[in-house]
Amino acid sequence: MKKTILVVLLLAPLFATAQSDYKEDSIFIRKIFNTALTDGKSYEMLRHLTLNVGPRLSGSAGAAKAVEYTRDVMKDEKFDHVFLQNVMVPHWVRGAKEQAAIVNGKQKVSVPLVALGGSIATPKTGITAGVIEVKTFQELRDLGTEKVKGRIVFFNRPMDTTKLNTFDAYGGAVDQRGAGASEAAKLGAIGCIVRSVTTRLDDVPHTGSMRYASGAPMIPAAAISTNAAELLSKTLKSNPETQFFFKQNCETFPDAPSHNVIGELKGSKNPAEFMVVGGHLDSWDIAQGAHDDGAGCVQSIEAVRLLKVLGYKPNNTLRAVMYMNEENGLKGGIAYADSAKSKSEKHVAAIESDRGGFTPLGFGIVGTAAQKAKIIGWQKLFKPYGLHEIGVGGGGADIGPLGQQGTVLLGLIPDSQRYFDYHHAANDTFDKVSRRELELGAASMAAMLYLLDKYGVN
Amino acid sequence: MKKTILVVLLLAPLFATAQSDYKEDSIFIRKIFNTALTDGKSYEMLRHLTLNVGPRLSGSAGAAKAVEYTRDVMKDEKFDHVFLQNVMVPHWVRGAKEQAAIVNGKQKVSVPLVALGGSIATPKTGITAGVIEVKTFQELRDLGTEKVKGRIVFFNRPMDTTKLNTFDAYGGAVDQRGAGASEAAKLGAIGCIVRSVTTRLDDVPHTGSMRYASGAPMIPAAAISTNAAELLSKTLKSNPETQFFFKQNCETFPDAPSHNVIGELKGSKNPAEFMVVGGHLDSWDIAQGAHDDGAGCVQSIEAVRLLKVLGYKPNNTLRAVMYMNEENGLKGGIAYADSAKSKSEKHVAAIESDRGGFTPLGFGIVGTAAQKAKIIGWQKLFKPYGLHEIGVGGGGADIGPLGQQGTVLLGLIPDSQRYFDYHHAANDTFDKVSRRELELGAASMAAMLYLLDKYGVN
Repeated sequence: MKKTILVVLLLAPLFATAQSDYKEDSIFIRKIFNTALTDGKSYEMLRHLTLNVGPRLSGSAGAAKAVEYTRDVMKDEKFDHVFLQNVMVPHWVRGAKEQAAIVNGKQKVSVPLVALGGSIATPKTGITAGVIEVKTFQELRDLGTEKVKGRIVFFNRPMDTTKLNTFDAYGGAVDQRGAGASEAAKLGAIGCIVRSVTTRLDDVPHTGSMRYASGAPMIPAAAISTNAAELLSKTLKSNPETQFFFKQNCETFPDAPSHNVIGELKGSKNPAEFMVVGGHLDSWDIAQGAHDDGAGCVQSIEAVRLLKVLGYKPNNTLRAVMYMNEENGLKGGIAYADSAKSKSEKHVAAIESDRGGFTPLGFGIVGTAAQKAKIIGWQKLFKPYGLHEIGVGGGGADIGPLGQQGTVLLGLIPDSQRYFDYHHAANDTFDKVSRRELELGAASMAAMLYLLDKYGVN
Repeated sequence: MKKTILVVLLLAPLFATAQSDYKEDSIFIRKIFNTALTDGKSYEMLRHLTLNVGPRLSGSAGAAKAVEYTRDVMKDEKFDHVFLQNVMVPHWVRGAKEQAAIVNGKQKVSVPLVALGGSIATPKTGITAGVIEVKTFQELRDLGTEKVKGRIVFFNRPMDTTKLNTFDAYGGAVDQRGAGASEAAKLGAIGCIVRSVTTRLDDVPHTGSMRYASGAPMIPAAAISTNAAELLSKTLKSNPETQFFFKQNCETFPDAPSHNVIGELKGSKNPAEFMVVGGHLDSWDIAQGAHDDGAGCVQSIEAVRLLKVLGYKPNNTLRAVMYMNEENGLKGGIAYADSAKSKSEKHVAAIESDRGGFTPLGFGIVGTAAQKAKIIGWQKLFKPYGLHEIGVGGGGADIGPLGQQGTVLLGLIPDSQRYFDYHHAANDTFDKVSRRELELGAASMAAMLYLLDKYGVN
């Protein structure tokens, strides 16, 4: 028992310091949130990015405008250094608007359809063929070449809406979109249509990337709205000879030059050690990309700006990074990590926001057990702002490649209920973003960046 | 130490029972959420209530339609007993659309304005007068009669947007709307305009109830949009002689007959003991009342319906109650409690949803310490669904009057960030409601109702 008392006495000054430090931190974090909620700039930045710049798929004029805009914003905010990083990106173009219809005998019902990113076009007159509906790749393979050949394969597995975390539900359905076309083509299908990967039943088709497997014939792939998927499934039940027609005009051009956009505050103690907050600047061509991921971009700029306007002098160099090409290549994330490696820029920690501008609930962490424990130890500092789950979930796609360099990865985790209502679709617009929710996310990132910078991760 | 072991051994069977019971509960609650998220009806009920019935201020034709609709829904769902309870309600009518303008010399700028509920009309030609801007009642009183007399008092204290719980911010601003007119009239003001009580800066005016204090002259009272409030304040700074014009045509008629709507499942063990889930059926006349409080109504019906379709046989009699007249009188809540008392209907517990159809985060509780502790003990059953704050906050306005009869009161607490963007305003429309968020709230209420019914509150 005496031993215990001795240990407590010895440790007491340490605890006292930790206590008083956290009190100071608590006050500073309150300032961050107050500033974001009263004089935050993320919402007005997002207004410009979505309404003035608009859609910004990699390689497009919109993407180039977005690069300029975010660079100019960070220059205007007088970040210490703002620069572009060259990235070659895929350049896929949708072309003229798609057409699609369910053809049941003489009846032809038009349905909403969008080509999947990376898909080839149909022939100029479109494709009309019989339809095989499946829910899994196994079901498809069990049907075999005989039943699939010459047909359009229709993947109709819905998202599991009973999953509370809608990203889990997304993970359980998105394979159809990514790999469905090649799985179908291997069995002789001539086209592939996929039920939109969304939690809603509506008339809005959701695009997203698909990949052709090497060795499989390339066939056109598209998504139809969930209401259209329900209608097609019903029609097929009453008439298995129902045909589907679609026509799309997309084209892949040679890779194009583009940029990551980087703005930094120089570190006062360890200027050669870096901490990053980032989102991705590209969006799908049919969307304003408000939640995906305009929100993450403006929150990242805002996180650094908040620390700056509050007079915080960082120990490490803090960077806001707008990654290019998350949607259909991840070339920006890869180029950023490659550059860090080749320049021996030690990246201590990176935070990503790419789950929408909704009310923040916590942060995911990828790191060692000790690093996770240290960050989870700050949980009580976030509790007053509604973030109650620190350490559940991972980082993010764009910062992922940094993981190989020992960087601790953190992902902002907002409420996920509405995300897939808008994801990759034309309804992902500025008006779907709540100013307060967006600002709370930016402030949360600023607070986490501050703690990481002040206390380190080890 | 031996004593401790003995106690643990003695209590072990109790814990074992509690454990296994909770496992069963956990499975049943999962069924509730799964059913709500896949076959929930609250969203379609809300669609009808907002888009087909529409605004439903007490005494209006819309309110009468809402009574019929919700009665019919509960009859169609084959609740054991569905009935109406008579309530006399205030009958205030807005009349022709208001007009308003800031008059700065020869310049006249129209601004969005809505009369406050309960206000009198202006003279037919409107009121035009000089403006005194204040932020507090004290500031007003300090000005004194001389400066206020013959003028319009403009209350311009914004909501404190740094408060994370926006209901706290509402509480800090709404006195201006409720009591401002009479405070101004006591000093000789001839009109009262109030900055809309909202977290947003926009052009949408928010109405709400006001009360005339006895003894003070009755003067017309209205709310202007927050952008208009900013403009008026700025204009007054550059020209203190700026005048304000408004014209409103509202009128109070004699109290009108209306109804609470009640649907119940009979208790199998204690049919004379009651548990209530409720929301209020009336809305402001300018709004569809989607979040306020169509959401609470359809969630209440849905909570009872979910238990019914899952085959749950309640011990107590469970009631979904659509209260009439929360907005401008609370006559429904009072009449319900009066009736319960006069019929000696023992009300064990009541749950209210009147904070919008947003992602549920917890329940507030009003009860004894022991009752609160018991309910908080169920917290882990709610955790998988994102509800992590059981016991923080109170019940609700409509169930409040039951509190005097010893009823435990619970309030569903959803995320509050967006609520005051829409509260009492024309933008409180169906499209602002997320299906999943609404359904999660209904399932949370069903789960709490189930636990209350199964385990009681004592």
